[in-house]
Amino acid sequence: MESGSLRKYSNFSEWYDYVVEAADIIDKRYPVKGMLVWKPYGYKALKLSMRILENLLEEYGHEEAYFPMLVPEEVFAKEKDFLEGFSGETFVVERTIRKVLMRKFLLRPTSETVMYYMFSLWIQSYKDLPIKLFQTVNVFRYETEHTRPILRVREIIMFNEAHTAHESLEDANKQIKEAIEIYKKFFDSLGLSYLILKTPKWDTFAGAEYNFDFFEIMPDKRAIELGSVINLGQKFAKAFDIKYQKRDGSYEYVYQTCYGVSERVIGVLISVHGDDRGIIFPAHIAPIQVIIIPIPYKGSEEAVFKKCDDILLKLKQNGIRARIDKTENTPGEKYYYWELRGVPVRVEIGPRDVRNNTVTLVRRDTLKRMVVKDEELLPKLNELFKEIFDNLKKKSWEWLNQNIHTASSVEEAKEIYREKQGIIKVPWCGRDECGQKIEEATELEGLGHDPEEKAEGACVICGKEAKWYFYIGKKY
Amino acid sequence: MESGSLRKYSNFSEWYDYVVEAADIIDKRYPVKGMLVWKPYGYKALKLSMRILENLLEEYGHEEAYFPMLVPEEVFAKEKDFLEGFSGETFVVERTIRKVLMRKFLLRPTSETVMYYMFSLWIQSYKDLPIKLFQTVNVFRYETEHTRPILRVREIIMFNEAHTAHESLEDANKQIKEAIEIYKKFFDSLGLSYLILKTPKWDTFAGAEYNFDFFEIMPDKRAIELGSVINLGQKFAKAFDIKYQKRDGSYEYVYQTCYGVSERVIGVLISVHGDDRGIIFPAHIAPIQVIIIPIPYKGSEEAVFKKCDDILLKLKQNGIRARIDKTENTPGEKYYYWELRGVPVRVEIGPRDVRNNTVTLVRRDTLKRMVVKDEELLPKLNELFKEIFDNLKKKSWEWLNQNIHTASSVEEAKEIYREKQGIIKVPWCGRDECGQKIEEATELEGLGHDPEEKAEGACVICGKEAKWYFYIGKKY
Repeated sequence: MESGSLRKYSNFSEWYDYVVEAADIIDKRYPVKGMLVWKPYGYKALKLSMRILENLLEEYGHEEAYFPMLVPEEVFAKEKDFLEGFSGETFVVERTIRKVLMRKFLLRPTSETVMYYMFSLWIQSYKDLPIKLFQTVNVFRYETEHTRPILRVREIIMFNEAHTAHESLEDANKQIKEAIEIYKKFFDSLGLSYLILKTPKWDTFAGAEYNFDFFEIMPDKRAIELGSVINLGQKFAKAFDIKYQKRDGSYEYVYQTCYGVSERVIGVLISVHGDDRGIIFPAHIAPIQVIIIPIPYKGSEEAVFKKCDDILLKLKQNGIRARIDKTENTPGEKYYYWELRGVPVRVEIGPRDVRNNTVTLVRRDTLKRMVVKDEELLPKLNELFKEIFDNLKKKSWEWLNQNIHTASSVEEAKEIYREKQGIIKVPWCGRDECGQKIEEATELEGLGHDPEEKAEGACVICGKEAKWYFYIGKKY
Repeated sequence: MESGSLRKYSNFSEWYDYVVEAADIIDKRYPVKGMLVWKPYGYKALKLSMRILENLLEEYGHEEAYFPMLVPEEVFAKEKDFLEGFSGETFVVERTIRKVLMRKFLLRPTSETVMYYMFSLWIQSYKDLPIKLFQTVNVFRYETEHTRPILRVREIIMFNEAHTAHESLEDANKQIKEAIEIYKKFFDSLGLSYLILKTPKWDTFAGAEYNFDFFEIMPDKRAIELGSVINLGQKFAKAFDIKYQKRDGSYEYVYQTCYGVSERVIGVLISVHGDDRGIIFPAHIAPIQVIIIPIPYKGSEEAVFKKCDDILLKLKQNGIRARIDKTENTPGEKYYYWELRGVPVRVEIGPRDVRNNTVTLVRRDTLKRMVVKDEELLPKLNELFKEIFDNLKKKSWEWLNQNIHTASSVEEAKEIYREKQGIIKVPWCGRDECGQKIEEATELEGLGHDPEEKAEGACVICGKEAKWYFYIGKKY
């Protein structure tokens, strides 16, 4: 693809595939469909992001653990809905190169079964509750559909999955609220907008009571799930026999929740914050926060490079991830290169900057250029980092809000979708039957409803008084 | 096992199995042999340790990346010695639950093949060199021998593997020196002693030119490999066709190295630093650095607990990982519990401490007790952390040195081994033939030699002038 021809909104698919590879996020030439190599630049952004979530989980009392990747078949099969839900996409190990094994092992597609087998050994009394654990691991899903780099893959390399167990349904419900709060803070910290919806019953996670999904809208106006928060009720507790002795001496099954986020969040962040020039990283997750470009003229080379080195040192000493581009490319080529990679601030240093004790700054989001005195560089950078972040966040919320439309009939929903895509909400009586009919009639997918948002008007299917809005659209 | 009956040196195997489980490092009840659940306490220590290595690698110019876990069979099979070396222990995926796949995939036992496939795409010119990458990932080896928790497992959950590519053999040799320097710093930072030996040719890593191993001696006096540094020469470059264009326009295969360390290091650390009461963690990798034990007497409860809370807050504000044990156990039970878990410093707070504005400190390694003024707590803790670390490190070097013995004949070596075990070094002419005969005659395993250590005397097999000492012993 030609550099000048990138068009994020009009040709998102091409934009995305080009950018994630050209900007050194991933390499999709690894010879297995749906499995990617993460290059250092992309991996750094992913790690910085995931660490924010891990720290949040710890602040909220979760502890990090590790459970094995291979699940014995008999453990995997204990909860029937789960088995059914994942059996289409789970890889099997039944041999080594030289030898057939006595048992079959499954590559975890998610870790409920592995963890809950252990929970049944760990939990005896109410004193052992609550348990709040998480792990960040690779999981495997044989996606038969169209794979997409980072967004839909067969090896999810950083699945952050939290799993909890509680004394009562009430405690589990509280935990769901806490999980939603944590995820809100996490996506807020990445400047992403989101819609939180209760999943239609017929799409609920295998083995769960109910779940909430966080959705963002991608530049092609399709909805994408950012994370999932699931109330498992007692189904797994019963399947794995996770009982505890209550204060009164009687026994009860525990109540469980789980919630997960993956590297997909970086794919979404790149898509939502980027522009026609490429990625725009918020500074706190940018692998390189400041790129210094020397602009030497004949005779000034030494002074310019020396100043670049001085500035680099100063930035590093102040904890800023900075680098100088000393390649032989022209300044214009360097601008293009680092803009594509989303470095939030560029520092240009030429002979005039040397003479005047100034530096020239260019912020990545607006490309606005400004000259500041050397001694103002650090406070100015911090100011710019904040402004860029605020700007990205504001834009992402505007994008989400302008792509959610209300319709009061099936026909209107179809018409709006034809014209504008995005997410449509329609009044709904709340019954599964009508929800499924909305999906059929509009040929769109149900994303769920917001239980706290009262609807106005009549259910677009049965005409009875609407309880909620049912959100529909096309999903990744 | 009874608490009082722990004997690290006289019954190491029992000590180890008990401690790693009772101290909440791992749970070995996961129903697959050689695969463990890492509990939060153990996982934290592991992560803190591994982060030291990751930071060191980055300081030395390595970048972190991620390569897929599943390796297509045809990629895995490209280097014949490697294939042969790992085919006995590599798991295979050839199906999902519902479907047979078109190709076979192998679970990485280590990532040479995955990475070098990509290197061949990335490296064109000398400008692309050197490449210095690492990743910390789970790898899988079907160990047929006796598995041991953490030390010999079938899923290695944190394999830190670095892989480099260079223009010349000289550069690769320099890289080996750098890797050894990095590993020395890493093991030094954990207070572990080590012996660095060049591996006997007949035991060299599949596909490699030569390698160096770091060995520690365990409490049962068997040698254990802590890490491996490997010069791969051009064998993989030839197998994967990794060529670069030189400055003069001609083409050459790259020269490669790789080096790896795993969670085994924590198993060794627990073993070497521990005592009959359990683990002793150096403070910088201790999941909990200070445990506060309230010693309330009737009437003083409120004041004692308040002071405990105040001290906890103060410690946390100063970045110390601290906790109060508020369980209903007796103080004695609490001491036992946290000593087993290796918390470096215990703070006891009783009514007298409240009255006198003091705290009572007990250091885990010597169990020495001391009373300090409240305002001296922080500097005293830092001092104790340092003293404990220095003491552990000193002891570990003493242990290593006192368990390396010199013998000047096969008979003497056998006799010393019968009496003292440990590692024996014998003068050796340097020829493979004699090295292998030493192994046979002593019924011990060859660990290698130190090329910088000149031997005195005659080769114990052929009687010719000795070039080096050949180190022998029993390995994990």
